[in-house]
Amino acid sequence: MENGSKKWCFQADKGLIAASSITVRGVLNTIMANLNKEDDRPVIPLGHGDPSSFPCFHTASTAVDAIIEAVNSAKYNCYSPTVGILPARRAIADYLNRDLPYKLSPDDVFVTLGCTQAIEITLSVLGRPGANILLPKPGFPYYKAIAGRNNIEIRHFDLLPDKGWEVDLEAVESLADENTAAMLIINPGNPCGNVYRYEHLKKIAETARELGIMVIADEVYGHLTFGSTPFVPMGVFGSIVPVLSLGSISKRWIVPGWRIGWLVVSDPNDILRKYGVVNSIISYLNISSDPATFIQGAIPEILENTNEDFFLKILNLLREAVDICCDGMQDIPCITCPNRPQGSMFVMAKLNLSLLEGIKDDMDFCLKLAKEESVIVLPGICVGMKNWLRISFAIEPSTLEVGFRRIKDFCERHAKKPLGHACH
Amino acid sequence: MENGSKKWCFQADKGLIAASSITVRGVLNTIMANLNKEDDRPVIPLGHGDPSSFPCFHTASTAVDAIIEAVNSAKYNCYSPTVGILPARRAIADYLNRDLPYKLSPDDVFVTLGCTQAIEITLSVLGRPGANILLPKPGFPYYKAIAGRNNIEIRHFDLLPDKGWEVDLEAVESLADENTAAMLIINPGNPCGNVYRYEHLKKIAETARELGIMVIADEVYGHLTFGSTPFVPMGVFGSIVPVLSLGSISKRWIVPGWRIGWLVVSDPNDILRKYGVVNSIISYLNISSDPATFIQGAIPEILENTNEDFFLKILNLLREAVDICCDGMQDIPCITCPNRPQGSMFVMAKLNLSLLEGIKDDMDFCLKLAKEESVIVLPGICVGMKNWLRISFAIEPSTLEVGFRRIKDFCERHAKKPLGHACH
Repeated sequence: MENGSKKWCFQADKGLIAASSITVRGVLNTIMANLNKEDDRPVIPLGHGDPSSFPCFHTASTAVDAIIEAVNSAKYNCYSPTVGILPARRAIADYLNRDLPYKLSPDDVFVTLGCTQAIEITLSVLGRPGANILLPKPGFPYYKAIAGRNNIEIRHFDLLPDKGWEVDLEAVESLADENTAAMLIINPGNPCGNVYRYEHLKKIAETARELGIMVIADEVYGHLTFGSTPFVPMGVFGSIVPVLSLGSISKRWIVPGWRIGWLVVSDPNDILRKYGVVNSIISYLNISSDPATFIQGAIPEILENTNEDFFLKILNLLREAVDICCDGMQDIPCITCPNRPQGSMFVMAKLNLSLLEGIKDDMDFCLKLAKEESVIVLPGICVGMKNWLRISFAIEPSTLEVGFRRIKDFCERHAKKPLGHACH
Repeated sequence: MENGSKKWCFQADKGLIAASSITVRGVLNTIMANLNKEDDRPVIPLGHGDPSSFPCFHTASTAVDAIIEAVNSAKYNCYSPTVGILPARRAIADYLNRDLPYKLSPDDVFVTLGCTQAIEITLSVLGRPGANILLPKPGFPYYKAIAGRNNIEIRHFDLLPDKGWEVDLEAVESLADENTAAMLIINPGNPCGNVYRYEHLKKIAETARELGIMVIADEVYGHLTFGSTPFVPMGVFGSIVPVLSLGSISKRWIVPGWRIGWLVVSDPNDILRKYGVVNSIISYLNISSDPATFIQGAIPEILENTNEDFFLKILNLLREAVDICCDGMQDIPCITCPNRPQGSMFVMAKLNLSLLEGIKDDMDFCLKLAKEESVIVLPGICVGMKNWLRISFAIEPSTLEVGFRRIKDFCERHAKKPLGHACH
């Protein structure tokens, strides 16, 4: 081609491009590309779980000071051991042990680049020819993207909106076979904002035990609960079934950009160790990138000494935001919410397209909402629920009010009623 | 098995365990496990390129202050765009543009988790059924481990010790075919400590261009040169052949634990963009972990304002260390070094086993050296050269002297000479 020489031998990786397009990031990028640049109102970001830019959601000073002390000490400029530095592993074990009936050791803990890398490790380790995994629907699409990259077949079980988004355990039983490696739960729920009761989690553990599969418990929103159901970590049932617990400081401390999390083997019977899964995790970490060593160095101080007042302030803000969100939806006929969120930063709301005119589906709704009102919402299709919406309420409350006012204006403008000449 | 229920369906990933065992980390872990815990002398770490724990190698205060300012600002607690934040991309482009005959734009730059993730992205993007890649021998084994994970066939070309570790370009020509995606150079060299001349780099570019393959230029040791040959980035020849340039602040700023680097498309003719390779990179980043946002936030200050005196101090330390290293080897008959290192932190030295007794090979040498003298050296087999050693000289000079004294003692004790009763 160029210069009359041999043509180039490289090419694009279409599988990679396809995998990336189904992630929350991929879909939000598409929607944000539809924003109207002439609209000079601020964009209202209800698409993702990251309120860190709002001053009321700034992280605890303890956390910032811990980072400064760690980087100032010059003790953490070095490479980290691939599993994480011991003080961080120990601190994470201690932090989780507060809620467990047995004791994790530092050897059960692997420090990761946020929960994202914990997911990546988990699915890479479980990938083998023919393996399948049971994922919730609705769910978090990153699991699907990474499972696909690792040649793991995906089978979906439903979460039941009429039962507070509980797992359809009969579906789990009928989907599992001898090639099923694991089932996933996300608790507190993304995208549903639900929090599972102790009894339901126990039933999940017993079902998985009967099926001979492990439970992957994505608890990145752990302790972010503000309803009547308290957060119970799945690891509590680790003696019934081996659990891989995934977590992070990203959400509870409102620092998703710090990229520090954990993958924890909650398995007091040491079954995962005996089956070589722990060795596979260690091997994967040997060929992966580590979290910055000085951020790991700050972890003991952050987990041990963050003031309880900080957590209460965040929970109060989220509770206030849920009120605004639920009131807002009640005012919009075409959006209904089957369950008031009790945790995490999201709610799933159903779109009634028959009340709207000229809106094809949830994706179309979100694209037009971005263009006309500079409000970003994630279409349900991205989490497996066509014609639903995933709305994040984790933003500064008065901004959230503005957001719902704009969504209401948008829906009224597109309402099917014959007298709807109000705007436009 | 347990409780009379169904047996567990999961299993270990043997491919992962095999891939991990061939990395520098994997091999060094094996050697360190052989240390004698009763030896109360300090361990002398000549196995890896990380002198950050020695006070004389502490990083520049500008770099530490930049991190503190970034985390204190609360502007960088948020998720990063998957390609990296714009100020960091722009600063990296500006930093590299100082040495290029054309201008990189921020869009050519992707911020990565150190050079490690840049390698991972590069090889993931090039992976497709039947693809192969040309790697130097000796080389850096992480490439082999990751290529294997991505089903890329590996073909090795020699670096020529008698020609200053230059690339055997005839071998490159004979190895390449229509499925060859790229060839790799590591300059300054790991493990050889060589620095390529401008003319040789130009010949590499012309050869790759004729073959229709891109050049991956691992420049993680960029600017760490202290001999007569100056560092020339491969991107200088980007108008001859498309180059992916991989770099990091890890080595020049002595902060490998900060995990920040870059993958840069040095391709003024935009060939990689046209062929979809850039889109594949962006897609891969959409499903990967990002470097901590506040560390990215510190990058402009670090790259623009680090005092030149800091770099000179580090280069003087390394120059002094090379003297100690070469003098030390001259004193040890069974270790010879074909080329005095001019860059990076390593030297390749040949082991003459015929002068030793009871030492089977390079791995055996390193295991026994660790056990008897608490000195860690990497066996050449790990970088593809059986019965060689890769020695890092990047440690505090007086400690390096102690290290070579111990290696000398070890070799004398194991020398074949009949009068060698000196110690033991």
